Amino acid sequence: MYGAIEAGGTKFVCAVGDEFGQITERMVIPTTVPEETMTEVISFFKQYELEAIGVGSFGPIDVNLQSPTYGNITSTPKLAWRDFPFVKVLKEAFQKPIGFNTDVNAAALGEARQGAAQGLDSCLYITVGTGIGAGAVVGGKLLQGWSHPEMGHILVRRHPNDPYKGKCPYHGDCLEGLAAGPAIEDRWGEKGVHLADRKDVWDLEAYYIAQALMQYIFILSPKRIILGGGVMKQKQVFPSIYTHLKELMNNYVSLPELSEYIVSPGLGNDSGITGSLYLAHQAFENDVKFLSENKI
Amino acid sequence: MYGAIEAGGTKFVCAVGDEFGQITERMVIPTTVPEETMTEVISFFKQYELEAIGVGSFGPIDVNLQSPTYGNITSTPKLAWRDFPFVKVLKEAFQKPIGFNTDVNAAALGEARQGAAQGLDSCLYITVGTGIGAGAVVGGKLLQGWSHPEMGHILVRRHPNDPYKGKCPYHGDCLEGLAAGPAIEDRWGEKGVHLADRKDVWDLEAYYIAQALMQYIFILSPKRIILGGGVMKQKQVFPSIYTHLKELMNNYVSLPELSEYIVSPGLGNDSGITGSLYLAHQAFENDVKFLSENKI
Repeated sequence: MYGAIEAGGTKFVCAVGDEFGQITERMVIPTTVPEETMTEVISFFKQYELEAIGVGSFGPIDVNLQSPTYGNITSTPKLAWRDFPFVKVLKEAFQKPIGFNTDVNAAALGEARQGAAQGLDSCLYITVGTGIGAGAVVGGKLLQGWSHPEMGHILVRRHPNDPYKGKCPYHGDCLEGLAAGPAIEDRWGEKGVHLADRKDVWDLEAYYIAQALMQYIFILSPKRIILGGGVMKQKQVFPSIYTHLKELMNNYVSLPELSEYIVSPGLGNDSGITGSLYLAHQAFENDVKFLSENKI
Repeated sequence: MYGAIEAGGTKFVCAVGDEFGQITERMVIPTTVPEETMTEVISFFKQYELEAIGVGSFGPIDVNLQSPTYGNITSTPKLAWRDFPFVKVLKEAFQKPIGFNTDVNAAALGEARQGAAQGLDSCLYITVGTGIGAGAVVGGKLLQGWSHPEMGHILVRRHPNDPYKGKCPYHGDCLEGLAAGPAIEDRWGEKGVHLADRKDVWDLEAYYIAQALMQYIFILSPKRIILGGGVMKQKQVFPSIYTHLKELMNNYVSLPELSEYIVSPGLGNDSGITGSLYLAHQAFENDVKFLSENKI
Protein backbone atom coordinates (compact mmCIF):
# COMPACT_ATOMS: atom_id res chain seq x y z
CA MET A 1 0.00 0.00 0.00
CA TYR A 2 1.21 3.49 -0.91
CA GLY A 3 0.51 6.98 0.41
CA ALA A 4 -0.04 10.05 -1.75
CA ILE A 5 -0.22 13.77 -1.01
CA GLU A 6 -1.46 16.41 -3.41
CA ALA A 7 -0.20 19.50 -1.62
CA GLY A 8 -2.03 22.56 -2.90
CA GLY A 9 -1.96 26.15 -1.78
CA THR A 10 -5.49 25.98 -0.40
CA LYS A 11 -5.96 22.30 0.40
CA PHE A 12 -4.06 19.07 0.94
CA VAL A 13 -5.48 15.85 -0.47
CA CYS A 14 -4.06 12.73 1.19
CA ALA A 15 -4.81 9.25 -0.09
CA VAL A 16 -3.76 5.65 0.18
CA GLY A 17 -3.96 3.17 -2.66
CA ASP A 18 -2.08 0.72 -4.82
CA GLU A 19 0.63 0.86 -7.47
CA PHE A 20 -2.01 0.96 -10.20
CA GLY A 21 -3.27 4.34 -9.00
CA GLN A 22 -6.40 2.91 -7.34
CA ILE A 23 -7.32 5.02 -4.32
CA THR A 24 -8.92 3.26 -1.34
CA GLU A 25 -9.08 6.02 1.30
CA ARG A 26 -8.71 9.77 1.16
CA MET A 27 -8.76 12.85 3.36
CA VAL A 28 -8.96 16.54 2.42
CA ILE A 29 -7.77 19.26 4.80
CA PRO A 30 -7.16 22.98 4.40
CA THR A 31 -3.59 24.22 3.96
CA THR A 32 -2.81 26.30 7.04
CA VAL A 33 0.70 26.29 8.54
CA PRO A 34 3.12 23.35 8.27
CA GLU A 35 2.98 22.40 12.00
CA GLU A 36 -0.80 22.03 11.89
CA THR A 37 -1.30 20.65 8.38
CA MET A 38 1.56 18.17 8.61
CA THR A 39 0.39 16.89 12.01
CA GLU A 40 -2.91 15.91 10.40
CA VAL A 41 -1.16 14.43 7.36
CA ILE A 42 1.09 12.27 9.54
CA SER A 43 -1.80 11.06 11.75
CA PHE A 44 -3.74 10.06 8.64
CA PHE A 45 -0.92 7.99 7.18
CA LYS A 46 0.03 6.45 10.55
CA GLN A 47 -3.19 4.40 10.31
CA TYR A 48 -1.69 2.40 7.44
CA GLU A 49 1.26 0.15 6.70
CA LEU A 50 2.84 2.07 3.79
CA GLU A 51 5.68 1.08 1.44
CA ALA A 52 6.35 4.66 0.31
CA ILE A 53 4.73 8.09 0.02
CA GLY A 54 4.52 10.27 -3.10
CA VAL A 55 4.10 14.05 -2.95
CA GLY A 56 2.92 16.35 -5.73
CA SER A 57 3.49 19.79 -4.25
CA PHE A 58 2.79 23.42 -5.00
CA GLY A 59 6.06 25.23 -5.60
CA PRO A 60 8.55 26.27 -6.55
CA ILE A 61 10.27 23.28 -4.98
CA ASP A 62 13.80 21.90 -5.00
CA VAL A 63 13.84 18.67 -7.01
CA ASN A 64 17.58 18.47 -7.57
CA LEU A 65 18.79 15.32 -5.79
CA GLN A 66 22.30 16.77 -5.52
CA SER A 67 21.11 19.91 -3.77
CA PRO A 68 21.43 20.32 0.03
CA THR A 69 17.88 21.69 0.05
CA TYR A 70 16.42 18.82 -2.03
CA GLY A 71 12.85 18.12 -0.98
CA ASN A 72 12.10 21.64 0.24
CA ILE A 73 9.43 24.06 -0.87
CA THR A 74 11.48 27.13 -1.84
CA SER A 75 10.44 30.67 -2.81
CA THR A 76 6.66 30.34 -2.43
CA PRO A 77 4.67 33.48 -1.65
CA LYS A 78 2.96 31.42 1.11
CA LEU A 79 5.41 32.56 3.75
CA ALA A 80 4.68 29.87 6.36
CA TRP A 81 5.73 27.22 3.85
CA ARG A 82 8.84 28.93 2.54
CA ASP A 83 11.87 26.61 2.93
CA PHE A 84 9.65 23.92 4.45
CA PRO A 85 11.65 20.63 4.29
CA PHE A 86 8.79 18.47 3.02
CA VAL A 87 10.76 15.29 2.26
CA LYS A 88 12.80 15.50 5.45
CA VAL A 89 9.68 15.79 7.65
CA LEU A 90 8.05 12.77 5.98
CA LYS A 91 11.26 10.72 6.06
CA GLU A 92 11.60 11.35 9.78
CA ALA A 93 8.00 10.38 10.47
CA PHE A 94 7.89 7.22 8.35
CA GLN A 95 11.44 6.04 7.44
CA LYS A 96 10.13 5.12 3.99
CA PRO A 97 11.04 6.20 0.46
CA ILE A 98 9.46 9.56 -0.43
CA GLY A 99 8.71 10.56 -4.04
CA PHE A 100 8.67 14.31 -4.53
CA ASN A 101 7.71 16.43 -7.52
CA THR A 102 5.53 19.36 -8.54
CA ASP A 103 1.73 19.09 -8.38
CA VAL A 104 1.55 19.54 -12.15
CA ASN A 105 4.24 16.97 -12.89
CA ALA A 106 2.31 14.52 -10.67
CA ALA A 107 -0.85 15.34 -12.61
CA ALA A 108 0.92 14.78 -15.94
CA LEU A 109 2.09 11.38 -14.68
CA GLY A 110 -1.41 10.45 -13.50
CA GLU A 111 -2.92 11.42 -16.85
CA ALA A 112 -0.21 9.52 -18.80
CA ARG A 113 -0.70 6.35 -16.78
CA GLN A 114 -4.42 6.30 -16.36
CA GLY A 115 -6.11 9.39 -17.80
CA ALA A 116 -6.46 11.20 -21.10
CA ALA A 117 -2.92 10.31 -22.24
CA GLN A 118 -3.03 6.67 -21.18
CA GLY A 119 -0.62 4.55 -23.19
CA LEU A 120 1.39 7.56 -24.44
CA ASP A 121 5.01 8.16 -23.42
CA SER A 122 4.58 11.90 -23.84
CA CYS A 123 2.00 14.42 -22.66
CA LEU A 124 1.64 17.91 -21.28
CA TYR A 125 -0.68 18.72 -18.36
CA ILE A 126 -1.56 22.37 -17.86
CA THR A 127 -3.56 23.77 -14.98
CA VAL A 128 -5.24 27.14 -15.25
CA GLY A 129 -6.56 28.13 -11.84
CA THR A 130 -5.28 30.48 -9.15
CA GLY A 131 -2.00 30.20 -11.07
CA ILE A 132 -0.90 28.60 -14.30
CA GLY A 133 1.52 25.71 -14.26
CA ALA A 134 2.36 22.71 -16.37
CA GLY A 135 4.08 19.39 -16.07
CA ALA A 136 5.19 17.04 -18.80
CA VAL A 137 6.01 13.45 -19.45
CA VAL A 138 8.79 13.08 -22.06
CA GLY A 139 9.99 9.66 -23.21
CA GLY A 140 7.95 8.09 -20.40
CA LYS A 141 9.59 10.19 -17.68
CA LEU A 142 8.74 13.42 -15.89
CA LEU A 143 10.42 16.40 -17.48
CA GLN A 144 13.19 17.74 -15.32
CA GLY A 145 16.45 19.51 -16.09
CA TRP A 146 18.20 22.23 -14.17
CA SER A 147 14.96 22.45 -12.20
CA HIS A 148 11.28 21.76 -12.84
CA PRO A 149 9.48 23.72 -15.57
CA GLU A 150 7.66 26.96 -14.75
CA MET A 151 5.58 27.08 -17.90
CA GLY A 152 2.97 29.50 -16.56
CA HIS A 153 5.41 32.39 -16.69
CA ILE A 154 6.15 32.44 -20.42
CA LEU A 155 5.50 35.63 -22.35
CA VAL A 156 2.52 36.02 -24.64
CA ARG A 157 1.64 38.89 -26.93
CA ARG A 158 -0.96 41.17 -25.43
CA HIS A 159 -4.25 41.50 -27.22
CA PRO A 160 -4.36 45.03 -28.68
CA ASN A 161 -7.72 45.69 -27.00
CA ASP A 162 -6.74 44.35 -23.57
CA PRO A 163 -5.65 47.22 -21.34
CA TYR A 164 -5.30 45.02 -18.24
CA LYS A 165 -1.81 45.44 -16.79
CA GLY A 166 -1.30 41.87 -15.57
CA LYS A 167 -1.10 40.37 -12.11
CA CYS A 168 2.16 38.42 -11.85
CA PRO A 169 4.32 39.90 -9.08
CA TYR A 170 7.45 38.88 -11.02
CA HIS A 171 6.60 39.46 -14.68
CA GLY A 172 3.44 41.57 -14.73
CA ASP A 173 1.77 40.49 -17.95
CA CYS A 174 3.23 37.01 -18.50
CA LEU A 175 0.76 34.21 -19.28
CA GLU A 176 -0.17 33.68 -15.62
CA GLY A 177 -0.40 37.44 -15.09
CA LEU A 178 -2.92 37.77 -17.92
CA ALA A 179 -4.87 34.51 -17.96
CA ALA A 180 -5.00 32.84 -14.51
CA GLY A 181 -8.18 33.01 -12.43
CA PRO A 182 -7.21 36.09 -10.38
CA ALA A 183 -6.39 38.01 -13.59
CA ILE A 184 -9.81 37.17 -15.01
CA GLU A 185 -11.53 38.35 -11.84
CA ASP A 186 -9.41 41.49 -11.68
CA ARG A 187 -9.95 42.41 -15.32
CA TRP A 188 -13.70 41.76 -15.53
CA GLY A 189 -14.69 42.46 -11.91
CA GLU A 190 -16.13 38.98 -11.34
CA LYS A 191 -14.90 35.42 -10.99
CA GLY A 192 -14.77 33.42 -14.23
CA VAL A 193 -17.45 31.05 -13.00
CA HIS A 194 -19.94 33.94 -12.99
CA LEU A 195 -18.95 35.03 -16.50
CA ALA A 196 -19.73 31.74 -18.22
CA ASP A 197 -21.93 33.29 -20.94
CA ARG A 198 -19.63 36.23 -21.76
CA LYS A 199 -18.20 35.44 -25.19
CA ASP A 200 -15.66 38.27 -24.99
CA VAL A 201 -14.23 36.92 -21.73
CA TRP A 202 -13.57 33.44 -23.10
CA ASP A 203 -12.39 34.59 -26.47
CA LEU A 204 -9.69 36.70 -24.80
CA GLU A 205 -8.80 33.79 -22.51
CA ALA A 206 -8.52 31.49 -25.53
CA TYR A 207 -6.36 34.08 -27.30
CA TYR A 208 -3.75 33.85 -24.53
CA ILE A 209 -3.99 30.09 -23.91
CA ALA A 210 -3.63 29.35 -27.64
CA GLN A 211 -0.43 31.39 -27.79
CA ALA A 212 0.96 29.42 -24.86
CA LEU A 213 0.01 26.13 -26.53
CA MET A 214 1.82 27.23 -29.70
CA GLN A 215 5.01 27.76 -27.68
CA TYR A 216 4.61 24.45 -25.83
CA ILE A 217 4.01 22.55 -29.09
CA PHE A 218 6.96 24.08 -30.93
CA ILE A 219 9.28 23.50 -27.97
CA LEU A 220 8.11 20.14 -26.55
CA SER A 221 5.94 18.56 -29.26
CA PRO A 222 3.83 16.62 -26.72
CA LYS A 223 1.74 13.69 -27.95
CA ARG A 224 -1.33 14.99 -26.10
CA ILE A 225 -2.21 18.16 -24.21
CA ILE A 226 -4.48 18.15 -21.17
CA LEU A 227 -6.04 21.38 -19.95
CA GLY A 228 -7.07 21.15 -16.31
CA GLY A 229 -7.68 23.49 -13.39
CA GLY A 230 -10.70 25.50 -12.32
CA VAL A 231 -10.73 27.98 -15.20
CA MET A 232 -10.63 25.19 -17.82
CA LYS A 233 -13.90 23.81 -16.42
CA GLN A 234 -15.48 26.50 -18.60
CA LYS A 235 -15.59 24.09 -21.52
CA GLN A 236 -16.93 26.77 -23.87
CA VAL A 237 -13.35 28.06 -24.11
CA PHE A 238 -12.06 24.95 -25.94
CA PRO A 239 -13.46 25.61 -29.45
CA SER A 240 -12.14 29.15 -29.31
CA ILE A 241 -8.69 27.83 -28.29
CA TYR A 242 -8.71 25.49 -31.32
CA THR A 243 -9.62 28.35 -33.65
CA HIS A 244 -6.91 30.68 -32.38
CA LEU A 245 -4.28 27.94 -32.34
CA LYS A 246 -5.01 26.88 -35.93
CA GLU A 247 -4.66 30.46 -37.08
CA LEU A 248 -1.38 30.92 -35.18
CA MET A 249 0.25 27.66 -36.30
CA ASN A 250 -0.82 28.21 -39.93
CA ASN A 251 -0.29 24.52 -40.79
CA TYR A 252 3.45 24.73 -40.25
CA VAL A 253 3.52 21.34 -38.55
CA SER A 254 0.95 18.60 -38.92
CA LEU A 255 -0.97 17.92 -35.71
CA PRO A 256 -3.72 15.48 -34.75
CA GLU A 257 -7.32 16.71 -34.91
CA LEU A 258 -7.25 19.45 -32.26
CA SER A 259 -10.37 18.30 -30.41
CA GLU A 260 -8.62 14.97 -29.79
CA TYR A 261 -5.21 16.51 -29.17
CA ILE A 262 -6.15 19.17 -26.63
CA VAL A 263 -8.52 17.72 -24.08
CA SER A 264 -9.86 17.86 -20.53
CA PRO A 265 -8.33 15.63 -17.82
CA GLY A 266 -9.38 11.99 -18.04
CA LEU A 267 -9.19 11.73 -14.24
CA GLY A 268 -11.32 14.80 -13.48
CA ASN A 269 -10.02 16.32 -10.24
CA ASP A 270 -7.89 13.26 -9.44
CA SER A 271 -4.97 13.68 -11.88
CA GLY A 272 -2.65 15.03 -9.18
CA ILE A 273 -3.46 12.63 -6.36
CA THR A 274 -3.37 9.63 -8.72
CA GLY A 275 -0.01 10.77 -10.08
CA SER A 276 1.29 11.16 -6.53
CA LEU A 277 0.45 7.52 -5.91
CA TYR A 278 2.61 6.65 -8.92
CA LEU A 279 5.36 8.87 -7.51
CA ALA A 280 5.21 6.76 -4.34
CA HIS A 281 5.50 3.57 -6.32
CA GLN A 282 8.46 4.96 -8.32
CA ALA A 283 10.20 5.97 -5.08
CA PHE A 284 9.68 2.46 -3.73
CA GLU A 285 11.04 0.83 -6.90
CA ASN A 286 14.08 3.14 -6.97
CA ASP A 287 14.77 2.26 -3.37
CA VAL A 288 14.60 -1.47 -4.04
CA LYS A 289 16.92 -1.00 -7.04
CA PHE A 290 19.35 1.07 -4.98
CA LEU A 291 19.43 -1.49 -2.17
CA SER A 292 19.98 -4.40 -4.55
CA GLU A 293 22.65 -2.61 -6.61
CA ASN A 294 24.50 -1.72 -3.45
CA LYS A 295 23.89 -5.15 -1.91
CA ILE A 296 22.36 -3.67 1.22
CA MET B 1 33.71 2.41 -37.99
CA TYR B 2 30.66 4.64 -38.39
CA GLY B 3 29.45 7.06 -41.03
CA ALA B 4 27.88 10.46 -40.35
CA ILE B 5 26.04 12.98 -42.50
CA GLU B 6 25.25 16.53 -41.50
CA ALA B 7 22.73 17.38 -44.18
CA GLY B 8 22.32 21.13 -44.44
CA GLY B 9 20.39 23.29 -46.86
CA THR B 10 23.57 24.60 -48.50
CA LYS B 11 26.11 21.87 -47.84
CA PHE B 12 26.45 18.24 -46.83
CA VAL B 13 29.23 17.22 -44.47
CA CYS B 14 30.04 13.51 -44.57
CA ALA B 15 32.45 11.90 -42.15
CA VAL B 16 33.64 8.57 -40.84
CA GLY B 17 34.84 8.00 -37.32
CA ASP B 18 34.40 6.01 -34.15
CA GLU B 19 31.78 5.60 -31.45
CA PHE B 20 33.52 8.25 -29.34
CA GLY B 21 32.81 10.95 -31.90
CA GLN B 22 36.39 11.02 -33.26
CA ILE B 23 36.32 11.89 -36.96
CA THR B 24 39.00 10.32 -39.17
CA GLU B 25 37.94 11.42 -42.67
CA ARG B 26 35.49 13.97 -43.99
CA MET B 27 34.09 15.41 -47.20
CA VAL B 28 32.05 18.56 -47.80
CA ILE B 29 29.88 18.95 -50.89
CA PRO B 30 27.23 21.49 -51.90
CA THR B 31 23.57 20.55 -51.52
CA THR B 32 22.16 20.44 -55.04
CA VAL B 33 19.48 17.87 -55.98
CA PRO B 34 19.11 14.47 -54.29
CA GLU B 35 20.23 12.41 -57.32
CA GLU B 36 23.51 14.29 -57.54
CA THR B 37 24.25 14.93 -53.87
CA MET B 38 23.35 11.42 -52.75
CA THR B 39 25.46 9.83 -55.49
CA GLU B 40 28.49 11.60 -54.06
CA VAL B 41 27.50 10.72 -50.49
CA ILE B 42 27.15 7.04 -51.35
CA SER B 43 30.48 6.93 -53.25
CA PHE B 44 32.22 8.49 -50.28
CA PHE B 45 30.88 5.96 -47.78
CA LYS B 46 31.41 2.98 -50.12
CA GLN B 47 35.16 3.40 -49.52
CA TYR B 48 34.70 2.21 -45.93
CA GLU B 49 33.46 -0.79 -44.00
CA LEU B 50 30.72 0.85 -41.89
CA GLU B 51 28.65 -0.55 -39.02
CA ALA B 52 25.95 2.13 -39.31
CA ILE B 53 25.30 5.65 -40.59
CA GLY B 54 23.86 8.58 -38.63
CA VAL B 55 22.09 11.51 -40.28
CA GLY B 56 21.41 14.94 -38.81
CA SER B 57 19.20 16.54 -41.42
CA PHE B 58 17.62 19.88 -42.24
CA GLY B 59 13.86 19.61 -41.98
CA PRO B 60 11.13 19.32 -41.22
CA ILE B 61 11.62 15.55 -41.28
CA ASP B 62 9.50 12.57 -40.27
CA VAL B 63 11.04 10.98 -37.16
CA ASN B 64 8.01 8.94 -36.12
CA LEU B 65 9.03 5.28 -36.35
CA GLN B 66 5.38 4.26 -36.72
CA SER B 67 4.80 6.53 -39.70
CA PRO B 68 4.76 5.17 -43.26
CA THR B 69 6.92 8.16 -44.27
CA TYR B 70 9.47 7.69 -41.45
CA GLY B 71 12.90 8.80 -42.56
CA ASN B 72 11.70 11.31 -45.15
CA ILE B 73 12.38 15.01 -45.43
CA THR B 74 8.85 16.46 -45.48
CA SER B 75 7.58 20.01 -46.13
CA THR B 76 10.91 21.75 -46.80
CA PRO B 77 10.86 24.86 -49.00
CA LYS B 78 13.78 23.24 -50.92
CA LEU B 79 11.47 21.65 -53.47
CA ALA B 80 13.94 19.09 -54.90
CA TRP B 81 14.23 17.56 -51.43
CA ARG B 82 10.54 17.55 -50.50
CA ASP B 83 9.43 14.02 -49.61
CA PHE B 84 12.96 12.69 -50.19
CA PRO B 85 13.16 9.23 -48.50
CA PHE B 86 16.55 9.77 -46.86
CA VAL B 87 16.63 6.64 -44.68
CA LYS B 88 15.25 4.39 -47.43
CA VAL B 89 17.91 5.50 -49.92
CA LEU B 90 20.73 4.87 -47.43
CA LYS B 91 19.28 1.54 -46.30
CA GLU B 92 19.11 0.35 -49.90
CA ALA B 93 22.68 1.41 -50.59
CA PHE B 94 24.27 -0.01 -47.43
CA GLN B 95 21.90 -2.50 -45.69
CA LYS B 96 23.07 -1.10 -42.36
CA PRO B 97 21.25 0.57 -39.44
CA ILE B 98 20.56 4.25 -40.16
CA GLY B 99 20.15 6.80 -37.35
CA PHE B 100 18.00 9.76 -38.38
CA ASN B 101 17.22 13.00 -36.60
CA THR B 102 17.23 16.75 -37.10
CA ASP B 103 20.50 18.62 -37.63
CA VAL B 104 19.91 20.53 -34.38
CA ASN B 105 19.09 17.43 -32.35
CA ALA B 106 22.31 15.87 -33.67
CA ALA B 107 24.19 19.01 -32.63
CA ALA B 108 22.63 18.90 -29.15
CA LEU B 109 23.76 15.28 -28.81
CA GLY B 110 27.28 16.12 -29.98
CA GLU B 111 27.54 18.98 -27.49
CA ALA B 112 26.16 16.83 -24.64
CA ARG B 113 28.60 14.00 -25.29
CA GLN B 114 31.71 15.90 -26.13
CA GLY B 115 31.18 19.66 -26.23
CA ALA B 116 30.01 22.47 -23.99
CA ALA B 117 27.48 20.27 -22.17
CA GLN B 118 29.76 17.28 -21.71
CA GLY B 119 28.75 15.16 -18.74
CA LEU B 120 25.25 16.69 -18.52
CA ASP B 121 22.10 14.69 -19.23
CA SER B 122 20.28 17.81 -20.38
CA CYS B 123 21.09 20.65 -22.75
CA LEU B 124 19.60 22.84 -25.42
CA TYR B 125 21.41 23.61 -28.69
CA ILE B 126 20.13 26.57 -30.69
CA THR B 127 21.33 27.59 -34.10
CA VAL B 128 20.77 31.12 -35.40
CA GLY B 129 21.72 31.25 -39.04
CA THR B 130 19.69 31.18 -42.26
CA GLY B 131 16.93 29.87 -39.99
CA ILE B 132 16.51 29.34 -36.27
CA GLY B 133 16.19 25.85 -34.86
CA ALA B 134 16.93 24.04 -31.67
CA GLY B 135 17.44 20.52 -30.42
CA ALA B 136 17.51 19.26 -26.88
CA VAL B 137 18.80 16.42 -24.78
CA VAL B 138 16.41 15.62 -21.90
CA GLY B 139 17.22 12.90 -19.37
CA GLY B 140 20.11 11.80 -21.58
CA LYS B 141 17.95 11.35 -24.67
CA LEU B 142 17.04 13.48 -27.66
CA LEU B 143 13.77 15.31 -27.17
CA GLN B 144 11.02 13.89 -29.32
CA GLY B 145 7.29 13.63 -28.90
CA TRP B 146 4.56 13.86 -31.49
CA SER B 147 7.32 15.09 -33.77
CA HIS B 148 10.64 16.93 -33.39
CA PRO B 149 10.64 20.42 -31.89
CA GLU B 150 10.42 23.49 -34.14
CA MET B 151 11.63 25.98 -31.57
CA GLY B 152 12.57 28.70 -34.06
CA HIS B 153 8.94 29.46 -34.76
CA ILE B 154 7.81 30.53 -31.31
CA LEU B 155 6.29 33.96 -30.88
CA VAL B 156 8.21 36.82 -29.32
CA ARG B 157 7.01 40.30 -28.46
CA ARG B 158 8.04 42.84 -31.06
CA HIS B 159 10.29 45.66 -29.98
CA PRO B 160 8.19 48.85 -30.03
CA ASN B 161 10.78 50.57 -32.25
CA ASP B 162 11.17 47.71 -34.71
CA PRO B 163 8.94 48.31 -37.74
CA TYR B 164 10.31 45.30 -39.67
CA LYS B 165 7.42 43.07 -40.71
CA GLY B 166 9.19 39.71 -40.36
CA LYS B 167 10.32 37.16 -42.91
CA CYS B 168 8.80 33.80 -41.95
CA PRO B 169 6.55 32.57 -44.79
CA TYR B 170 4.33 30.80 -42.23
CA HIS B 171 4.23 33.13 -39.22
CA GLY B 172 5.60 36.49 -40.41
CA ASP B 173 7.15 37.88 -37.26
CA CYS B 174 7.86 34.76 -35.22
CA LEU B 175 11.36 34.43 -33.72
CA GLU B 176 12.88 33.14 -36.96
CA GLY B 177 11.03 35.78 -38.95
CA LEU B 178 12.52 38.56 -36.82
CA ALA B 179 15.93 37.31 -35.75
CA ALA B 180 17.45 34.83 -38.26
CA GLY B 181 20.21 35.93 -40.63
CA PRO B 182 17.95 36.81 -43.58
CA ALA B 183 15.78 39.01 -41.31
CA ILE B 184 18.86 40.88 -40.11
CA GLU B 185 19.99 41.47 -43.69
CA ASP B 186 16.51 42.48 -44.79
CA ARG B 187 15.97 44.88 -41.89
CA TRP B 188 19.35 46.61 -41.93
CA GLY B 189 20.23 46.29 -45.62
CA GLU B 190 23.45 44.37 -44.98
CA LYS B 191 24.50 40.96 -43.74
CA GLY B 192 25.11 40.68 -39.99
CA VAL B 193 28.79 39.98 -40.54
CA HIS B 194 29.19 43.51 -41.98
CA LEU B 195 27.31 45.09 -39.09
CA ALA B 196 29.60 43.83 -36.33
CA ASP B 197 30.17 47.25 -34.73
CA ARG B 198 26.52 48.39 -34.85
CA LYS B 199 25.35 48.35 -31.21
CA ASP B 200 21.70 48.90 -32.19
CA VAL B 201 21.72 45.83 -34.44
CA TRP B 202 22.99 43.47 -31.76
CA ASP B 203 20.93 44.93 -28.99
CA LEU B 204 17.76 44.29 -30.98
CA GLU B 205 18.97 40.78 -31.83
CA ALA B 206 19.66 40.13 -28.14
CA TYR B 207 16.19 41.48 -27.25
CA TYR B 208 14.55 38.75 -29.36
CA ILE B 209 16.97 35.93 -28.50
CA ALA B 210 16.61 36.63 -24.76
CA GLN B 211 12.83 36.36 -25.00
CA ALA B 212 13.19 33.00 -26.73
CA LEU B 213 15.61 31.80 -24.05
CA MET B 214 13.12 32.81 -21.35
CA GLN B 215 10.48 30.60 -22.99
CA TYR B 216 12.90 27.70 -23.43
CA ILE B 217 14.05 27.92 -19.80
CA PHE B 218 10.53 28.09 -18.35
CA ILE B 219 9.35 25.20 -20.53
CA LEU B 220 12.39 22.87 -20.66
CA SER B 221 14.70 24.00 -17.85
CA PRO B 222 17.86 22.81 -19.67
CA LYS B 223 21.06 22.33 -17.68
CA ARG B 224 23.06 24.27 -20.25
CA ILE B 225 22.22 26.36 -23.33
CA ILE B 226 24.47 26.43 -26.38
CA LEU B 227 24.06 29.19 -28.95
CA GLY B 228 25.51 28.20 -32.31
CA GLY B 229 25.05 29.10 -35.97
CA GLY B 230 26.53 31.86 -38.12
CA VAL B 231 24.77 34.79 -36.45
CA MET B 232 25.94 33.73 -32.97
CA LYS B 233 29.57 34.03 -34.12
CA GLN B 234 29.05 37.73 -33.39
CA LYS B 235 30.14 37.19 -29.81
CA GLN B 236 29.40 40.81 -28.87
CA VAL B 237 25.72 39.81 -28.70
CA PHE B 238 26.19 37.53 -25.66
CA PRO B 239 26.52 40.18 -22.90
CA SER B 240 23.45 41.94 -24.24
CA ILE B 241 21.51 38.64 -24.21
CA TYR B 242 22.46 38.13 -20.54
CA THR B 243 21.29 41.63 -19.64
CA HIS B 244 17.92 41.31 -21.38
CA LEU B 245 17.35 37.81 -20.00
CA LYS B 246 18.07 38.86 -16.41
CA GLU B 247 15.62 41.69 -16.71
CA LEU B 248 12.93 39.44 -18.21
CA MET B 249 13.30 36.58 -15.70
CA ASN B 250 13.41 38.99 -12.76
CA ASN B 251 14.95 36.35 -10.45
CA TYR B 252 11.85 34.18 -10.54
CA VAL B 253 13.94 31.01 -10.76
CA SER B 254 17.53 30.62 -9.69
CA LEU B 255 19.88 29.96 -12.59
CA PRO B 256 23.61 29.36 -12.86
CA GLU B 257 25.84 32.36 -13.65
CA LEU B 258 24.57 33.27 -17.14
CA SER B 259 28.01 33.48 -18.77
CA GLU B 260 28.55 29.82 -17.82
CA TYR B 261 24.96 28.78 -18.54
CA ILE B 262 24.54 30.25 -22.03
CA VAL B 263 27.65 29.55 -24.07
CA SER B 264 29.10 29.00 -27.55
CA PRO B 265 29.46 25.47 -28.95
CA GLY B 266 32.34 23.50 -27.45
CA LEU B 267 32.81 21.71 -30.78
CA GLY B 268 32.92 24.85 -32.95
CA ASN B 269 31.43 23.95 -36.33
CA ASP B 270 31.51 20.22 -35.60
CA SER B 271 28.58 19.83 -33.17
CA GLY B 272 26.27 18.45 -35.86
CA ILE B 273 28.64 16.06 -37.59
CA THR B 274 29.94 14.75 -34.25
CA GLY B 275 26.39 14.22 -33.04
CA SER B 276 25.56 12.39 -36.27
CA LEU B 277 28.37 9.96 -35.51
CA TYR B 278 26.71 9.28 -32.14
CA LEU B 279 23.39 8.82 -33.96
CA ALA B 280 25.11 6.12 -36.05
CA HIS B 281 26.41 4.40 -32.94
CA GLN B 282 22.95 4.55 -31.29
CA ALA B 283 21.37 3.03 -34.42
CA PHE B 284 23.94 0.23 -34.33
CA GLU B 285 23.33 -0.49 -30.63
CA ASN B 286 19.55 -0.46 -31.08
CA ASP B 287 19.90 -2.91 -33.94
CA VAL B 288 22.05 -5.28 -31.87
CA LYS B 289 19.52 -5.06 -29.04
CA PHE B 290 16.61 -5.70 -31.40
CA LEU B 291 18.31 -8.73 -32.96
CA SER B 292 19.18 -10.22 -29.58
CA GLU B 293 15.75 -9.58 -28.06
CA ASN B 294 14.12 -11.19 -31.06
CA LYS B 295 16.71 -14.00 -31.17
CA ILE B 296 17.53 -13.27 -34.82
